[in-house]
Amino acid sequence: MEYSENRLNSVINSVRAPDRSVMDEAERRQAQLAKPPGSLGRLEELAVQLCGIRGRMRPTVENKYLLVFCSDNGVTQEGVASAPRSVTLAQTINLARGKTGGSVLARNIGCRLLVCDVGVDAEIREPGVIGRKIARGTANIAKGPAMTREMAVQAVLIGADLASEAAAEGADVIGIGEMGIGNTTTSSAVISALTGAAVKDVTGRGGGITDEMYRNKISVIERALEVNSPDGSDALDVLSKVGGFDIAAMAGAFIGAAACRLPVIIDGFIAAAAALCAARLCPAAADYMIPSHESYEIGYRVAMDELRKKPLFSLGMRLGEGSGCPIAMSMLDAACAVMNDMATFDEAGIDDGYLEPIRAIDAFSVDGSGEGKGTR
Amino acid sequence: MEYSENRLNSVINSVRAPDRSVMDEAERRQAQLAKPPGSLGRLEELAVQLCGIRGRMRPTVENKYLLVFCSDNGVTQEGVASAPRSVTLAQTINLARGKTGGSVLARNIGCRLLVCDVGVDAEIREPGVIGRKIARGTANIAKGPAMTREMAVQAVLIGADLASEAAAEGADVIGIGEMGIGNTTTSSAVISALTGAAVKDVTGRGGGITDEMYRNKISVIERALEVNSPDGSDALDVLSKVGGFDIAAMAGAFIGAAACRLPVIIDGFIAAAAALCAARLCPAAADYMIPSHESYEIGYRVAMDELRKKPLFSLGMRLGEGSGCPIAMSMLDAACAVMNDMATFDEAGIDDGYLEPIRAIDAFSVDGSGEGKGTR
Repeated sequence: MEYSENRLNSVINSVRAPDRSVMDEAERRQAQLAKPPGSLGRLEELAVQLCGIRGRMRPTVENKYLLVFCSDNGVTQEGVASAPRSVTLAQTINLARGKTGGSVLARNIGCRLLVCDVGVDAEIREPGVIGRKIARGTANIAKGPAMTREMAVQAVLIGADLASEAAAEGADVIGIGEMGIGNTTTSSAVISALTGAAVKDVTGRGGGITDEMYRNKISVIERALEVNSPDGSDALDVLSKVGGFDIAAMAGAFIGAAACRLPVIIDGFIAAAAALCAARLCPAAADYMIPSHESYEIGYRVAMDELRKKPLFSLGMRLGEGSGCPIAMSMLDAACAVMNDMATFDEAGIDDGYLEPIRAIDAFSVDGSGEGKGTR
Repeated sequence: MEYSENRLNSVINSVRAPDRSVMDEAERRQAQLAKPPGSLGRLEELAVQLCGIRGRMRPTVENKYLLVFCSDNGVTQEGVASAPRSVTLAQTINLARGKTGGSVLARNIGCRLLVCDVGVDAEIREPGVIGRKIARGTANIAKGPAMTREMAVQAVLIGADLASEAAAEGADVIGIGEMGIGNTTTSSAVISALTGAAVKDVTGRGGGITDEMYRNKISVIERALEVNSPDGSDALDVLSKVGGFDIAAMAGAFIGAAACRLPVIIDGFIAAAAALCAARLCPAAADYMIPSHESYEIGYRVAMDELRKKPLFSLGMRLGEGSGCPIAMSMLDAACAVMNDMATFDEAGIDDGYLEPIRAIDAFSVDGSGEGKGTR
């Protein structure tokens, strides 16, 4: 495979907007379903979005894929993470062996998990890990760029290619996650560089980080931005200077999924940073993205606001590994069921003596106008 | 079946607290799983709760049941609902035929749906509807009691018995929903009577209700409380005077599920009112309850606060019919997968040259202490 900016641009240019006419038809169908308009809330919105993405009225998310990109980050030299760097390797292997939280949650809903090494600091001989290593970890962003621009392009294309392979295997939906010690630091740096938000406003302290560690984390990110001066209008520049192989590959996977007209799910904070990169590289890709759970990291909301998305749920999860995606996929399943299986007022017609009350249901659509339970 | 207050008391007295020792063991296992402590958030809490409820370490929620209780409410004479009363009948039948939102969402996750008529204002000849009609609708609470105390006992026992039948069929989890035009009015009345909250603080206006209708709804509820003077310390008195057959049967189903040591899911606002009644009748039952989605009705939060529960998600749904339960059940499935299938630090041991990094994972449990993504 050729890893050139040219090829990346052609992937980006292949992303089309979701099909507006199908979305209009889907909205009309939602209004005809035998329920007060809007009473299924975000399930209705998701169903309409899915119709537009897939370009057809009866979308399904039967074949589920979760892509988890694993890599190490040189910035761990600065003491920004309490877990040792070697945990990246260990959990990459445990992911592939189906033993971690992310892999268990994926398997629980029949979601296929692809674990991809884009930069773990070890030679991995694990058959379940897809080897796409660019280097054994990035360089320390506090001292210079994480990687070359060429490497960033390569990482983005690796992600896009893997999404495309999942699509070729029949994926109906793709979730995007990661494993990489140090990657909340790089994610905060990326979001700050792309949005201009102050580092302290996009950097989380987590539950157990000490005040001292937190101050250090912020100052490391500030130094990284100062040393590297990333160009906030050029996402590839940002990724290469203060990002990571994981975030870059995830950004590519978002774009690749959109190019294949697949809905693509944002896991937590790091995935949100990657999604924002993807949207900057390819604005049309944003319409294919679906957030899952709300991250406690304060930068998550900044990224979501930029993307104009709201998380679907908030269960206090902060494991990473794509662990929020399977639950969002269950909600997509529910949205598809509503769209595909519910009767419309017409279809719900009952003709053995109950016709009158059934006609009365139309009152829902006439004067019920979205008040739902409030009117019952 | 005998419907006496004596039998109801014996059902209530049969409810035991969840098994604390199993919950302690479950908490220890959660702490040993190969993840930063607490990083799976509420999934961990749900798993521990399920272990205590079922009294064993490997809980499952494979056999899912949704019980939907349908009935009419005399208070619709007061113009509190914009949908006509006949919609109760129509949607009861459509539910049983698998055509409504609640039935579609249940089927989507393989959840069995039991539709029970406890008071629909029509003779129902639909084979899929379980006939337990007490009367063709309640009396108008604005003018007198909804039903006799005997009827309230009967309704509660009908609900408890149906939960018990589901348990006998092998249910691992039960969701509780309803269909009954006018039942947000009765729910607000019940919550106000039980908590002493002002009617306006527990009465919703929905999205489409006019100011005039809203003012009328509040004054109807205030009148109902004045006319009937329900005794807030006696849930049966409250149910019989200002409740409905649906709410009473749902309350019974919560108690019946708890008596059978099954987790039981609260759908939306009306189910929350019923859950509060159940908890007042049988405080031990509350530990078996799991909320699903957040209702927009303002009284929902009052009931949840009383129950000391927080909804699992908020998708803007307000359909009723138990429609929030299936999504909560998917989350319980995920919680079980975490508890049953994730490796502990010990079990995740990898002995082919990766031993050192795997040992390093222990750093999670040593100094990671809940900081999760914040530390990565």
